[in-house]
Amino acid sequence: MKLTKHTDYALRILIYSALQPEERLLSIQEVTDVYELSRNHVMKIVQKLGQEGYLTTIRGKGGGFHLGRKPEDINLGELICKLEPSMRLVNCEEPVCRISTSCRLQSILSEAMNSFTAVLSSYSLADLIDNPKELSNLLAISA
Amino acid sequence: MKLTKHTDYALRILIYSALQPEERLLSIQEVTDVYELSRNHVMKIVQKLGQEGYLTTIRGKGGGFHLGRKPEDINLGELICKLEPSMRLVNCEEPVCRISTSCRLQSILSEAMNSFTAVLSSYSLADLIDNPKELSNLLAISA
Repeated sequence: MKLTKHTDYALRILIYSALQPEERLLSIQEVTDVYELSRNHVMKIVQKLGQEGYLTTIRGKGGGFHLGRKPEDINLGELICKLEPSMRLVNCEEPVCRISTSCRLQSILSEAMNSFTAVLSSYSLADLIDNPKELSNLLAISA
Repeated sequence: MKLTKHTDYALRILIYSALQPEERLLSIQEVTDVYELSRNHVMKIVQKLGQEGYLTTIRGKGGGFHLGRKPEDINLGELICKLEPSMRLVNCEEPVCRISTSCRLQSILSEAMNSFTAVLSSYSLADLIDNPKELSNLLAISA
């Protein structure tokens, strides 16, 4: 079981964004450089995070992006559910499983996933940056 | 988030095995046919389930396999943890993340995963076959 790289990088980007002075504009290049990620990945992720309102993006020359909500208003359970392509742990249709109409596995897995997301939903992005000095040092963000 | 196909198919195979008359020997071919899976996948999964003691495998001519423990003794939490290559949802080393030494994400994800596996651990393979007539019909297993 893994989160997608897309979700993993989105979390890294949101942490970096949340540690910035309020409304400081970031560029794709800056985030690409700081985490040594592929520019193509970062572009797609920033676009997605913008669509979902987690980042505010400003187009054109002098544009960029900044965190779109307060860190404490970015719920980790909701965020991960929005970023992951699917939270269904098995796909009974691919290949189609002949017992799927009577199988109890999906309901047991759903119960376990509900418990998983309930824990995540008790945390927000603010909990991921509750040690801002250490993180800012590691990311070379000046105070 | 997804379980691997390997784990998904292993569950299908264990369900089929658990519905058989006790100690009836199954063949790779029978399971391959019943679920329309690739023979190669089924061979690897049966081997792994044998190594872990979930199936008893008997080699040679007239050989085959049957369930290695009672369904109620096959805990779903333990099973899934053994079958999945990793239960670490993000890999901070690939590509290496510069905040990994101070990042709280892993501990929050671990807490959520513990809650996930705790739910699964309250179920066993017996719970997946508590409607044996329906399942046997779908799998064309004669009583």
